[in-house]
Amino acid sequence: MLIITTPDITQDALDHLIERVEAAGLRTHVIRGAERTVVGCIGDDARLRDIALGQMPGVADVVPVLKPYRLAAREYAAGATTIALGDPAGTVVGGDALVMMAGPCSVEGREMLHATARAVQRQGARVLRGGAFKPRSSPWAFQGLGTEALELLAEVRAATGMPVVTEVMDTRQVELVASYADVLQIGARNMQNFALLSEVGRAQRPVLLKRGLSATVTELLQAAEYVMAQGNRDVILCERGIRTYETSTRNTLDVAAIPVLKRETHLPVLVDPSHAAGKAALVAPLAMAAIAAGADGLIVEVHPEPSCALSDGEQSLTFEAFASLMRQAAPFAAAAGRTLPLTAPAALGAAA
Amino acid sequence: MLIITTPDITQDALDHLIERVEAAGLRTHVIRGAERTVVGCIGDDARLRDIALGQMPGVADVVPVLKPYRLAAREYAAGATTIALGDPAGTVVGGDALVMMAGPCSVEGREMLHATARAVQRQGARVLRGGAFKPRSSPWAFQGLGTEALELLAEVRAATGMPVVTEVMDTRQVELVASYADVLQIGARNMQNFALLSEVGRAQRPVLLKRGLSATVTELLQAAEYVMAQGNRDVILCERGIRTYETSTRNTLDVAAIPVLKRETHLPVLVDPSHAAGKAALVAPLAMAAIAAGADGLIVEVHPEPSCALSDGEQSLTFEAFASLMRQAAPFAAAAGRTLPLTAPAALGAAA
Amino acid sequence: MLIITTPDITQDALDHLIERVEAAGLRTHVIRGAERTVVGCIGDDARLRDIALGQMPGVADVVPVLKPYRLAAREYAAGATTIALGDPAGTVVGGDALVMMAGPCSVEGREMLHATARAVQRQGARVLRGGAFKPRSSPWAFQGLGTEALELLAEVRAATGMPVVTEVMDTRQVELVASYADVLQIGARNMQNFALLSEVGRAQRPVLLKRGLSATVTELLQAAEYVMAQGNRDVILCERGIRTYETSTRNTLDVAAIPVLKRETHLPVLVDPSHAAGKAALVAPLAMAAIAAGADGLIVEVHPEPSCALSDGEQSLTFEAFASLMRQAAPFAAAAGRTLPLTAPAALGAAA
Amino acid sequence: MLIITTPDITQDALDHLIERVEAAGLRTHVIRGAERTVVGCIGDDARLRDIALGQMPGVADVVPVLKPYRLAAREYAAGATTIALGDPAGTVVGGDALVMMAGPCSVEGREMLHATARAVQRQGARVLRGGAFKPRSSPWAFQGLGTEALELLAEVRAATGMPVVTEVMDTRQVELVASYADVLQIGARNMQNFALLSEVGRAQRPVLLKRGLSATVTELLQAAEYVMAQGNRDVILCERGIRTYETSTRNTLDVAAIPVLKRETHLPVLVDPSHAAGKAALVAPLAMAAIAAGADGLIVEVHPEPSCALSDGEQSLTFEAFASLMRQAAPFAAAAGRTLPLTAPAALGAAA
Repeated sequence: MLIITTPDITQDALDHLIERVEAAGLRTHVIRGAERTVVGCIGDDARLRDIALGQMPGVADVVPVLKPYRLAAREYAAGATTIALGDPAGTVVGGDALVMMAGPCSVEGREMLHATARAVQRQGARVLRGGAFKPRSSPWAFQGLGTEALELLAEVRAATGMPVVTEVMDTRQVELVASYADVLQIGARNMQNFALLSEVGRAQRPVLLKRGLSATVTELLQAAEYVMAQGNRDVILCERGIRTYETSTRNTLDVAAIPVLKRETHLPVLVDPSHAAGKAALVAPLAMAAIAAGADGLIVEVHPEPSCALSDGEQSLTFEAFASLMRQAAPFAAAAGRTLPLTAPAALGAAA
Repeated sequence: MLIITTPDITQDALDHLIERVEAAGLRTHVIRGAERTVVGCIGDDARLRDIALGQMPGVADVVPVLKPYRLAAREYAAGATTIALGDPAGTVVGGDALVMMAGPCSVEGREMLHATARAVQRQGARVLRGGAFKPRSSPWAFQGLGTEALELLAEVRAATGMPVVTEVMDTRQVELVASYADVLQIGARNMQNFALLSEVGRAQRPVLLKRGLSATVTELLQAAEYVMAQGNRDVILCERGIRTYETSTRNTLDVAAIPVLKRETHLPVLVDPSHAAGKAALVAPLAMAAIAAGADGLIVEVHPEPSCALSDGEQSLTFEAFASLMRQAAPFAAAAGRTLPLTAPAALGAAA
Repeated sequence: MLIITTPDITQDALDHLIERVEAAGLRTHVIRGAERTVVGCIGDDARLRDIALGQMPGVADVVPVLKPYRLAAREYAAGATTIALGDPAGTVVGGDALVMMAGPCSVEGREMLHATARAVQRQGARVLRGGAFKPRSSPWAFQGLGTEALELLAEVRAATGMPVVTEVMDTRQVELVASYADVLQIGARNMQNFALLSEVGRAQRPVLLKRGLSATVTELLQAAEYVMAQGNRDVILCERGIRTYETSTRNTLDVAAIPVLKRETHLPVLVDPSHAAGKAALVAPLAMAAIAAGADGLIVEVHPEPSCALSDGEQSLTFEAFASLMRQAAPFAAAAGRTLPLTAPAALGAAA
Repeated sequence: MLIITTPDITQDALDHLIERVEAAGLRTHVIRGAERTVVGCIGDDARLRDIALGQMPGVADVVPVLKPYRLAAREYAAGATTIALGDPAGTVVGGDALVMMAGPCSVEGREMLHATARAVQRQGARVLRGGAFKPRSSPWAFQGLGTEALELLAEVRAATGMPVVTEVMDTRQVELVASYADVLQIGARNMQNFALLSEVGRAQRPVLLKRGLSATVTELLQAAEYVMAQGNRDVILCERGIRTYETSTRNTLDVAAIPVLKRETHLPVLVDPSHAAGKAALVAPLAMAAIAAGADGLIVEVHPEPSCALSDGEQSLTFEAFASLMRQAAPFAAAAGRTLPLTAPAALGAAA
């Protein structure tokens, strides 16, 4: 921690400041500049984080030196974290192969879920997404099929071998959702729902953590830290667009967050181009950009008939559009030094 | 709903569009302009909200005509909603008198809570705020005293007659917190935690709903709608600053949200100048601005010794600074046509 | 300047870093923490600003200690700057009296300008605003009457004694506009048009400098510094709303910028509630908030018949609405410890 | 234009509204819904744009149907606009080949400019960038070498055959800069400097128009419209990152703006990854993302010794880093269906 003082700080105020820092167990080091004096604090920043140094007389600014996360920091792990999903196809998030997750925004019924799963799996998707509990801005909008949807997801997993990722919104449902899902999704609106983060941190399932609409990269890593602090180290980060003043897209994809996260953390990074775009026609270019910037995979909304979807139809791809996206993605994946399967897993050919 | 078509829409596509809208139970009305054709849809917009009209061929844009909330809309109620807190002093939120809520960010102990409550009550504050469960960006930061804090709040309420407002962060704790608190606070980070909103909607306690860091006014009202949809109509809205690019304050107080909300809804509107400012020295000017713009009250962080606070010390006021804020506020309250008590309730003089 | 190094910096890299800083004429001071080493640089930060220290091996972050403006800084002046406009009424910006500037968005003709000037002057406005050259988003929109408007403004000034403020958009027009106007306005879109800032810095006229749509408070002060660096110290800052994701208002009034500026600079601060609001009905509450937060005055759009205005009609007040705003403002001005005239200047009663 | 009325509009107000619209020369069409009445206005929206319909009694909202630009709209041109730069290498912006523009932020001297030009040309860059007049936030920072820099740019063009792009900041310098430069750059801070836009619209040079820090895509196209309205149709748009709350990058690259612009306009779209990133290490991933999303080229800052650069050193690439970026870009260009030269033009081999 570095404390920048005001030009007019008194010696008394400076002495008092040093005393407070040392009382917290740190050592101090004073640099007297021509116009300002700076107090360097040597030791654990965290001990000072709860002292309102800025309220002390003569303090102009306080600059933290250490990052506010440890377990999520790149230095913490020996190398990049890879997360095996335990499926017959041997899917690993964060490895050489890009992982494509695809499926409907909401699970709307058996038929559509089976059809969508098979369609995306045939094109190389390895994980099935599908909402059971839906976070909707309006209480009057369709809220998802709940437990019935979880059962359908499990049924389709049994049929296809695809692991499923689905959102959990309530601490009381973590156990339930975890009993069906292979990956627990934390939605953007719950990225700082700390009770929920801690609860999924106690579950034995990988967590797909979406970045909040106005969360910084640092806050996203702190949210991951909440999950990891409970012992669950399998966190997959997901950039899905942030809120800005621009209205031509639903959100603004912060494509730079991908390389920034790659420098800051050992955790894998996925991108959701569907929510960033908000319009089906923009999903593919954003998907290509994400792969080019170094994403470890994508999560994409696909629906048998998007204009009839009960939620997010505007941004859902048809089967054909998803197939086209996958074909388009192949050379970009290669350019990025990644592999990308474009067919169903061999072992599952028979099942499919 | 108004559907704006592309310049090159075919007659077939137009017919198909009309068919889809009418199949959803609405009537249509076509306006043919020089360059564009518009389809007006007469009936309940909500029936169309789940059809991805924008994905249909020939559709350029879709414009909703009706607001996406009903219970929270100004037209829904005969007049402004007032919420009586049931305390001996007869505090009413949304009435003529400004309601001042004040207290520490976190309840840190018995001593400091009693002292703070009495200090702010003597200056005219009518409601005691104090965090028991704290939403902290880092899992390693102080998380609040939990149930012990709830007990201390109840103890201080008994001693002073002040109703208490405290945050609830987990659906599993709503019942617990509601058994101690007079007003349930939903924090900014949980404004779109829909499970929690529904749960407090089922509680028999007024709800103080803080605006999310990047929530629009419309989304704030939709969040209130979630609470109200469960039968709880006692929602107090709270503007607390939004996230922008500006870093000279912790958040940017959207002071215009106050008159906008006053036009859109019948619910009372409070302002939290402490979280907006992030620095103690800026709290008073923001408080004055909020009163001038028509707020129904304030919620302010006050601490016996801010530089020792376990959370949010930078923005906490000393007792003296709070007293000064109240004195400064009096003529602004009068200018706004409101009353503002500047002493403890008469009936409680003895108790205090 | 403080240089925070990476955990793995080598001694060689550290030596090289220190060498570079010292070669620039500063002294260094090294603080070795448990995890990071910090290099304090003693001397003029500006000498380092053009060295890309962040590109040197082993550098994690660079923290400036000194403010990037001097002339605009509060410490530079003995007290608050006041700017006398030299009119018969003795108007002073930044003094005890709030200064109200009002008039049409655009000067549309002789009749309407005279009528508006007299109407607003009767209510206490002391300065007439009116656009001659208009910055419009579209090249096909009304661009202002130009020189004809400047002549009308001078004519109305002669008749009423009101100083006039009008925008200058082109370095080639500064001399022309300065020959008619009492105050030169720099619009928000030109806040970082550095050639224009320098040019008005050479004019002998006070400058009203509007904050850019996405300018920080620091950048606003740096823009003022550009004007002041040319010798013109009479800069009036103007907060007029910033661009955020919220769409219920045209811009988001950053009311906190007022007290922040009051702490950072000696220059006077005006507020333009019209452009912030974008809707006539919201202008008055924002005006009250600005006064309460410490503004030195307001600049407000007023039009004889807003729904017929050639520009910004949506946010223009009628004469009656402006009169009402002034009456409403009086007690807020008093609460803020300021005076506010509510009639035309006595000396001008005859003229008016 | 569609006018949405309030639920309580009177018949009189509705009649008056219709009368005003028809008086402006449009026809009206009334749709009566269950809760709201909508007035469709048939004819040229522009005639209504200057009537403040929102101020008329009973009007809730006004929705434009037509785009606020014509010349820049995709429908205006038969196909994509291509801009030939007239150099010996036959560079065309907007064609099949990606166009790489590279060079120092500021022209700092003869030596460094020659060296940089040859270095980037050898890797396939076809256009030399270099600032002569620099827009700096502080008046005390290095402001560029001015005319001397223009002469150096012309000298290096003569030696290498590379067309040069350089910024013009002042209407008075357009003729001067155009006499040296092949492409006139309008910087982000001047995107809404309408006098400057009109002036470069009268010059006989292509214009590289950078998106403003908080400009919408629509405003960028309206700015292009200003240039085109003066007869200059050779406008190259440039996305360079927008201002958001995120601070881990200098700006937030709005990569989605590329496909959005490709749908809205016929003009070519470049990307400046250097200003978006703000840090050299992030430039390459953003460059790859831009190519993948469909950009027609890049403009990149390169410096012989970035840590000694007089401006923007933090984000400047070394020659080696630029060479590496080009090699990395090749397969992404191919994946995007574009060509990318990786050597100096054959014809210039001798000169170089």
